[in-house]
Amino acid sequence: MTLIKSFEWRYATKKFDSTKKLSSEAVQSIIDASRLAPTSSGLQPFKLLVITNQELKEKIVSLSYGQTLPADCSHLLVFAAWDNYTNERIDHIYELTTNERNMPADRYNDYKVRLKTLFASKTAEQNFEHAARQAYIALGFAMAQAAAIEVDSTPMEGFSTDALDELLNLRAQGLRSVLMLPLGYRDVENDWLASLKKVRHPQSEFVVEIK
Amino acid sequence: MTLIKSFEWRYATKKFDSTKKLSSEAVQSIIDASRLAPTSSGLQPFKLLVITNQELKEKIVSLSYGQTLPADCSHLLVFAAWDNYTNERIDHIYELTTNERNMPADRYNDYKVRLKTLFASKTAEQNFEHAARQAYIALGFAMAQAAAIEVDSTPMEGFSTDALDELLNLRAQGLRSVLMLPLGYRDVENDWLASLKKVRHPQSEFVVEIK
Repeated sequence: MTLIKSFEWRYATKKFDSTKKLSSEAVQSIIDASRLAPTSSGLQPFKLLVITNQELKEKIVSLSYGQTLPADCSHLLVFAAWDNYTNERIDHIYELTTNERNMPADRYNDYKVRLKTLFASKTAEQNFEHAARQAYIALGFAMAQAAAIEVDSTPMEGFSTDALDELLNLRAQGLRSVLMLPLGYRDVENDWLASLKKVRHPQSEFVVEIK
Repeated sequence: MTLIKSFEWRYATKKFDSTKKLSSEAVQSIIDASRLAPTSSGLQPFKLLVITNQELKEKIVSLSYGQTLPADCSHLLVFAAWDNYTNERIDHIYELTTNERNMPADRYNDYKVRLKTLFASKTAEQNFEHAARQAYIALGFAMAQAAAIEVDSTPMEGFSTDALDELLNLRAQGLRSVLMLPLGYRDVENDWLASLKKVRHPQSEFVVEIK
């Protein structure tokens, strides 16, 4: 199946078959996709929580406006972005980079100064918003990989980020929840959306060509 | 090649071979991927500009802090998000949806009212920010498809969005530029980044498992 066929196959699954679980290989490949996604200046300003604890998954239903996906899914991914860019966080990724590339430790010093100056000129909220956008790229990569191996996934913004931050103690770790992505296998018979046609703006409305 | 291998193969190409152009089939498949990406409530709140006009591509270099990627690439994609959610825009996509699904025109009336009320309670800037995030998912899908067919792509936030909006007359169309994605083929010999190891936070720092 080509990736485009996989993208046509996928849809925002509304009902998972809660008896079907992802293999550890499948989950690992989706984590890998998220981790390989590009981010601004390579900062990867988010973490990925992989939740299989059933009690916790059920608690998350109550802060997802009653949507049962977090309970019914096999694995619940939560993308949690940095609450701010800090000098320590920037130094850490570039230390990792110079180590991995066998470069002198000061190789990126000028670039780091520019980044630190840029982020220091913005509010924590602006920096969080920028970090949150990066998580959406990783969400895209995760969903692409899920579709490629015929795993269903449902991107979710519809939950109380404040309540989830509190439940998972994210703020104390300098993180804020941005997105959830339940993973599993569709329960076709009980999913009202499974049989409905995928609708998108026609290409004539979506694309502007400038030749 | 598996998609994960494709994700490992891809990198933020810094130098394109300007003599190599994408086939129309390759471009179309990357457009398709962008268009098939999921968005909040299915609103698809952005447009995709596909720029091949060389004069325009060169003008864009000057507002990209001198980065020559927009000029050297084969096709320059620009993701431009809605400047706000409006009742007309919401009505339009649901009219399309009921038509495509052969449903009564009033099928989504309650849902539309909820969406309109939600967006009306927020500022234009907040709604734009939400729309912009959706474009990042589509960027992810576009890059995934590009990698799958061994087309290089470089996600770019580093440009003056105000200047690009003016150059492309986006504001008058209710749009604001968010991202650029030059597409092409890497010039390995002249790309300083081509041979450098891809660096990511190790999984132990990136993933938190809650079992």
